[in-house]
Amino acid sequence: MYGLIGKMRARTGKRDELLGILLDSSGAMPGCLSYVIAKDPADADAIWISEVWDSSASHKASLQLPEVQAAISRAMPIIAGFETSIETEPVGGLGLGR
Amino acid sequence: MYGLIGKMRARTGKRDELLGILLDSSGAMPGCLSYVIAKDPADADAIWISEVWDSSASHKASLQLPEVQAAISRAMPIIAGFETSIETEPVGGLGLGR
Repeated sequence: MYGLIGKMRARTGKRDELLGILLDSSGAMPGCLSYVIAKDPADADAIWISEVWDSSASHKASLQLPEVQAAISRAMPIIAGFETSIETEPVGGLGLGR
Repeated sequence: MYGLIGKMRARTGKRDELLGILLDSSGAMPGCLSYVIAKDPADADAIWISEVWDSSASHKASLQLPEVQAAISRAMPIIAGFETSIETEPVGGLGLGR
């Protein structure tokens, strides 16, 4: 499995709008086992995303999906930056079904 | 929902043993929606755990479960430390079913 833990920052006051785009676009992504979108309660513009994929290839392929490309286009103007991006190698747990 | 993203460090060479304990103990935890255990591919002793609970109360209650207390007792001697612990407020995504 392939995992990513990332923190992104919305432009000031745009977090809810960015969350909406992320939630809309986290539908059918082949090979995606978990995709958790969270607010940072200590940082008003920050969003954490924790992802698990069956492989890094599935993650890479997802970025080419039309729905994902459309979401990226909508999101980019209200993203201020990416602050943390950690690759992980998930080994198990709960919530990795489909 | 209540989330935690944490990094812990096993004592040198003990990561696989610690992963085994964590995997064993991530069974029936009431209110746990997601619990992903991952290796850090860039750091030989490091483990990332990403958790989602229906509430912080459920997370707190889980720490009192006999199975979890037993796992903590087994794990403590081979944990070198906790390096990152971030509370989050998950809003949705995939893999949050039971």
